[in-house]
Amino acid sequence: MNASEGQIHPTALVAVGARLGRNVSIGAQSIVHPGVEIGDGTVIQEHCSIGLPGVDAGSPLVIGPGSLIRTHSVIYGGSVLGERLETGHHVVIREKTRAGINLRVGNFCDIEGDCAIGDYSRFHGYAHVGKGSHIGNFVWLFSLTTATNDPLPPSLLNVPVVIEDGAVVCVGVTLMPGVVIGKGAFVSAGSCVRESIPSGAVVAGLDGHVVNHVSQLLHLPSGLRHPWMRHYRKGYPPEAVARLEKLEKEILENRFTLKTENE
Amino acid sequence: MNASEGQIHPTALVAVGARLGRNVSIGAQSIVHPGVEIGDGTVIQEHCSIGLPGVDAGSPLVIGPGSLIRTHSVIYGGSVLGERLETGHHVVIREKTRAGINLRVGNFCDIEGDCAIGDYSRFHGYAHVGKGSHIGNFVWLFSLTTATNDPLPPSLLNVPVVIEDGAVVCVGVTLMPGVVIGKGAFVSAGSCVRESIPSGAVVAGLDGHVVNHVSQLLHLPSGLRHPWMRHYRKGYPPEAVARLEKLEKEILENRFTLKTENE
Amino acid sequence: MNASEGQIHPTALVAVGARLGRNVSIGAQSIVHPGVEIGDGTVIQEHCSIGLPGVDAGSPLVIGPGSLIRTHSVIYGGSVLGERLETGHHVVIREKTRAGINLRVGNFCDIEGDCAIGDYSRFHGYAHVGKGSHIGNFVWLFSLTTATNDPLPPSLLNVPVVIEDGAVVCVGVTLMPGVVIGKGAFVSAGSCVRESIPSGAVVAGLDGHVVNHVSQLLHLPSGLRHPWMRHYRKGYPPEAVARLEKLEKEILENRFTLKTENE
Repeated sequence: MNASEGQIHPTALVAVGARLGRNVSIGAQSIVHPGVEIGDGTVIQEHCSIGLPGVDAGSPLVIGPGSLIRTHSVIYGGSVLGERLETGHHVVIREKTRAGINLRVGNFCDIEGDCAIGDYSRFHGYAHVGKGSHIGNFVWLFSLTTATNDPLPPSLLNVPVVIEDGAVVCVGVTLMPGVVIGKGAFVSAGSCVRESIPSGAVVAGLDGHVVNHVSQLLHLPSGLRHPWMRHYRKGYPPEAVARLEKLEKEILENRFTLKTENE
Repeated sequence: MNASEGQIHPTALVAVGARLGRNVSIGAQSIVHPGVEIGDGTVIQEHCSIGLPGVDAGSPLVIGPGSLIRTHSVIYGGSVLGERLETGHHVVIREKTRAGINLRVGNFCDIEGDCAIGDYSRFHGYAHVGKGSHIGNFVWLFSLTTATNDPLPPSLLNVPVVIEDGAVVCVGVTLMPGVVIGKGAFVSAGSCVRESIPSGAVVAGLDGHVVNHVSQLLHLPSGLRHPWMRHYRKGYPPEAVARLEKLEKEILENRFTLKTENE
Repeated sequence: MNASEGQIHPTALVAVGARLGRNVSIGAQSIVHPGVEIGDGTVIQEHCSIGLPGVDAGSPLVIGPGSLIRTHSVIYGGSVLGERLETGHHVVIREKTRAGINLRVGNFCDIEGDCAIGDYSRFHGYAHVGKGSHIGNFVWLFSLTTATNDPLPPSLLNVPVVIEDGAVVCVGVTLMPGVVIGKGAFVSAGSCVRESIPSGAVVAGLDGHVVNHVSQLLHLPSGLRHPWMRHYRKGYPPEAVARLEKLEKEILENRFTLKTENE
């Protein structure tokens, strides 16, 4: 049953048309559909459905090397997902999603398709990424983030959100259609963001107003302070450090000029 | 593995007592329990549990023709679900639910049983429909809607909500026990509804107060305006159009007399 | 397919190293990994992954007797879960969780590991229990409760919450890192709790301020009144009644001295 040894479990169902790299593991009861291409060393755990045919059935699914897809995950055909992808359990990723390297997606997340996601982004549990969302590099979406896209529900309008590099969206936040979360901005827990947010801004409250610059966010007992890439580099591979340092500088640039409601 | 061709996958487990219509497909690893009756042309995808025995084990489950049950769905015995039902992935529908035609239920939804649901209703992801809820026709529940039923938690009291035809409940809304959401009312994102809402009302804020009539809700760039059945008929089958037009008229009836907090 | 008769379904995969008590049932397609110990009479339903190897692969998982694990549940190795555990569908319980007797965990819950949970606690759907949380006996977490643990997200700081005996956390509540929810306290729907709450306090609002003592919470039509253990003993086994009575008395002790914002 253990899928960690580069083996295809006898109860796994792998389509003839699927292309598996070296040392790929497919766990018990998992299903790999035709048109799936899985990179070297990737582990698919148990009970997964990989390459499920969607609206554009037949277009291939690419999962990069070194990835880990946890149990009960569902990934549709028609996406290209970069190396070292990690999904939690019971994840859904719909078609036409393009993700960079080392995306991590928590348990029960739902990525609704047509999304573009950069490198090294991290989504926690129950994050819901609406169709067409644009998400940058090093972005954090904490639990129960909802990125909407319909400005007059229900309608056929589609106005997805944009989340720029290094932004942090805390638990229980709703992002209304079309908002742009600027580079390195920080959205506090429970906020509802109705307007775009400048780079480096901290927003809070149900109306998501700007209260501060992230460089003012600190944790007194430890002395740690934002931007978070100052103190949180563990969990990122070494090759990402130079990009994190560059991003930190860019976020700090406007720290003396940002307009907040405290002024 | 592809369950779209009217076939029972060799790894599917179909009980002797189950009755399958013509061209029913059962996907790999899915399980159909005794007492299940599945209509013609219905597709059950992979990893599902259909007709799971619940508190009244043995009572049958009816799934209407032309339905699509996506992967990892769980539907208990003892419900009657109308034709052209569609579920997302990882959905749970408990016993004694009665649903009309063409209900669509998004990923990770939980319908807790003893519910009555009309025709053509649409629930998005993570919607939680408490036990005993009454939901009309053409109702929209967006992501993370929670329909509660216990007025003094925890207790054995059960005071479920009622949602009338054409009502729209936006993302992240909590409906407190016993509230009635009137015909065509619109509950804005993040509201907590503690009192019943008149037909056609728009409510907003944490206290869910009435701010407007839905006919005042519009999207400037496109010129689209509520009631939503004016502009959103796609996605409904042709036979539903006359009912949508009738519903639109009914919702507009009180637009000059509704009391709001803006007056 | 029916797993209720003390049988191992032929499609279940049970590792040689797993130890099953008498009359244990393992449902179709479920997987039991090495190092799992399952008590007498426990039922594992279909499509489950039990004893999945986590960060400390190889440490055993103990599931007490008389438990019911519903479909599509995922429980990692390295936890000890007491007798009469019940999980909903699609539940995730990570490693190093210690739970007392008769814990019930609703559909789509996520217990992130390193947690200590007392006896007879009840979690409803989509409750998210952050890593390291301490949860007492007879605690209620309603739907969409989120117990966080990172005071400066993202960071490596870990400041989990503590929820004392008999506390009730209503739907959609966020508990910020490090808060202590006192014995028998009641957190109203939608609150965000940023500071610790005294025993027996009722908190409400986005800032989670104290408004009352729980003995003032009542349901007029029925005359029922908190503390909830006065009227809600059904659902608990008889041996728990004496403990519920003792807890009720302890919660009532400070009812005349609690400071609230109404004073």
